Amino acid sequence: MRVAVVGAGAVGLYFGAKLQRAGHEVRFLVRRDYEALAAYGLSVTSPEGNFHLEQVQGFRTSTEIGTVDLVLVAIKTVDNSRLVELVAPLMGSETLVLTVQNGLGNEDLLADAFGPDRILGGIAIIAVHRGEPGVVHHHAHGSIRFGEFAGGITDRTSTLADTFSRSGIPCDVVADFRKIRWEKLVWNITFNGLCTVTGKTPGQILSHVDGYRLATGLMREVIAGANSQNLTELLQPDAFIDSIVANTLMHTADYRPSMAIDRQEGRPLELNAIYRIPLEFAAERGCEMVRVRMLHDLLAVGETNSE
Amino acid sequence: MRVAVVGAGAVGLYFGAKLQRAGHEVRFLVRRDYEALAAYGLSVTSPEGNFHLEQVQGFRTSTEIGTVDLVLVAIKTVDNSRLVELVAPLMGSETLVLTVQNGLGNEDLLADAFGPDRILGGIAIIAVHRGEPGVVHHHAHGSIRFGEFAGGITDRTSTLADTFSRSGIPCDVVADFRKIRWEKLVWNITFNGLCTVTGKTPGQILSHVDGYRLATGLMREVIAGANSQNLTELLQPDAFIDSIVANTLMHTADYRPSMAIDRQEGRPLELNAIYRIPLEFAAERGCEMVRVRMLHDLLAVGETNSE
Repeated sequence: MRVAVVGAGAVGLYFGAKLQRAGHEVRFLVRRDYEALAAYGLSVTSPEGNFHLEQVQGFRTSTEIGTVDLVLVAIKTVDNSRLVELVAPLMGSETLVLTVQNGLGNEDLLADAFGPDRILGGIAIIAVHRGEPGVVHHHAHGSIRFGEFAGGITDRTSTLADTFSRSGIPCDVVADFRKIRWEKLVWNITFNGLCTVTGKTPGQILSHVDGYRLATGLMREVIAGANSQNLTELLQPDAFIDSIVANTLMHTADYRPSMAIDRQEGRPLELNAIYRIPLEFAAERGCEMVRVRMLHDLLAVGETNSE
Repeated sequence: MRVAVVGAGAVGLYFGAKLQRAGHEVRFLVRRDYEALAAYGLSVTSPEGNFHLEQVQGFRTSTEIGTVDLVLVAIKTVDNSRLVELVAPLMGSETLVLTVQNGLGNEDLLADAFGPDRILGGIAIIAVHRGEPGVVHHHAHGSIRFGEFAGGITDRTSTLADTFSRSGIPCDVVADFRKIRWEKLVWNITFNGLCTVTGKTPGQILSHVDGYRLATGLMREVIAGANSQNLTELLQPDAFIDSIVANTLMHTADYRPSMAIDRQEGRPLELNAIYRIPLEFAAERGCEMVRVRMLHDLLAVGETNSE
C-alpha cells in the first residue's frame, strides 16, 4: 500500500512510521522536519520498544508525492483552509482519504471536495509528542477507530483495518464514525477548554467540588448535543459521564490537553473543529449548548491570532 | 456624629477621612495602617484636591472604640465570618449600621445579629485604592446610595444622607437598597469574573465579538435574577444592558476589577457575596443563572485559599 501522510506532527509521524516499518511505502508531507528526516531518518521512542527508520521519504509539496492508495490526514484543524489543496494532488481514481484530526467538520470538508465515497473518518487514541526534528516520543495507546463517511461497514474498511492492525496499529471499524467523534468530543470539549482557561489539570478540576460540577455539566451538554444528531445509538448520560470521570482520574488526571499547550506556546487553538462546528451541528438540531458556547467564548476572547 | 469605620481599606479610609474633615468624630478599626496613622495621620490624594488629617483615631479592637452613632462597614466580604463580632461592641441603643460592602447577604447577616431596624444597606460608587500605609489615592466618583433594610424612605435616612452630602460625600436615599445592589451586581458579576478568568479588561472583552456575547449573556442572566426578587421596579434588560455597555466603554474600559487584582495578588476572591449568595437568592425564586454558575465555578477552581 502506498500511503501519503499529510501533517507530519507527532500523530502523523508515528502512524506513518509504523506503516513503513511493516513494509508499506509511506510518503510524508513535511515542513519543520524535512532536513532532519532526509539526513537522519525518523526515530520513535516508545514503551513498546524504540525503533529507527534510516530512509524516510519526506516531501515539501503534495505534487512531488503524487497519487497514493491512502491519504492519512493528521494536520491541525487550524490549517484546514489549506486541506483540500494539500490533498488534491494525492488523489488517484481509487484513493481513500482517512482523517484522524480533532473535532468535527473535517470529513465534510473532504467529502465536498472529493466525493463522499472517498472519505473515511476516525479518531486516533494515542498519547504522543514531537521531540527534536526527526524524533517522536510515544507514551501510551496508539489505536485508530474509523468508519465510512457514508456509514456502514464495508469490505474496504475491514481490509484497511486489518492492514493497520498487522502494522502494529490496533484498529477497529465502526458503522457510524460520527458517534465516536462525538464521544471523543465529550472529553475534548470539556477538558481542552477547562484546562486552558483555568490552567489546571483534569485531575485537579475533577477533584474540586465546583470543578466537578463544571466538568460534568459540560459533558452533559455535549452528550445532549450528540444525542440530537441521529447517531446510530444514543449515549446514556449518567453512565457515560461516570466512565469518563473514572477513566480520566485513572489515566489522564495529570495530562495537559493539546489546547492548553497550544495556548501556552502562543499557537492558535482548534476552536472551529472542537467548538464552533459542534455548536453549529447541535444548534441545527435545536440543541443549544449554553455552557459549551460560554467556554468557547472565554477561549476565543483569549486568542490573539484567530483561525 | 460619632462614626466607627470597620474595615480601613481604601473605601473605609476615604469616606472616614471625608467625614472627619467635615467635623465628625471618626474612629477607625485598623490593622495594616495602625502605626502609620498614629505616627503620620492620614493622607488622601484626589483630583478634587489632596488633603491630610494630622490626628487620626485608629484602634486595634472594636472594644476600644466603644459605642457610636453610626457604624460604616467596609471590610472585604471574605472576612464576613468575623463581621458580627467586630460590630457588636460598637452598638449602643440607637446605633445605625451602614454596610457598603460588595455583593449580597451583608445586610442579612447584620440584621440577624442586631435587628433589622438597625441596618442600612448601600453601595459605594468610587474608584479609590490604597497607597503605602496612611495614604489613600482617590481617582473618581465617591458617592453612596443607601436605604433602610426594611425598605422605604425614613427621616433618619434622609438626615444621614444630608450629613454625608454636607461632608463632601454625594449621597442619595433609595426606597429599595436591594434594587441598587442587584443593579451593581450586573456589572460586578460580569466583569469581576470575566476579567479574572481571561486576564482581559472590560474594554477588550466588549470589543471582541465573542466577548460581547459572553458579557451581555451574563448581564441578561443577572437581570433575570434581579427581576425574580420582587424588587420595587423591574429592570428592562435591553435598555439596561445598552447603558452598562456604553458606560463601561466610556468610563471603565481599562479598569481592572478588584477581583482580578485580588487573584493576581493571591488573595481570596469575594465569591460568596458576589456569586454564591446571588445564585442562591435567584434559585430560591426559581431562576437558575447557568452562565453565572459556570463563571463562579471557573473562579472557584482557581482558588487556592477558599472562603
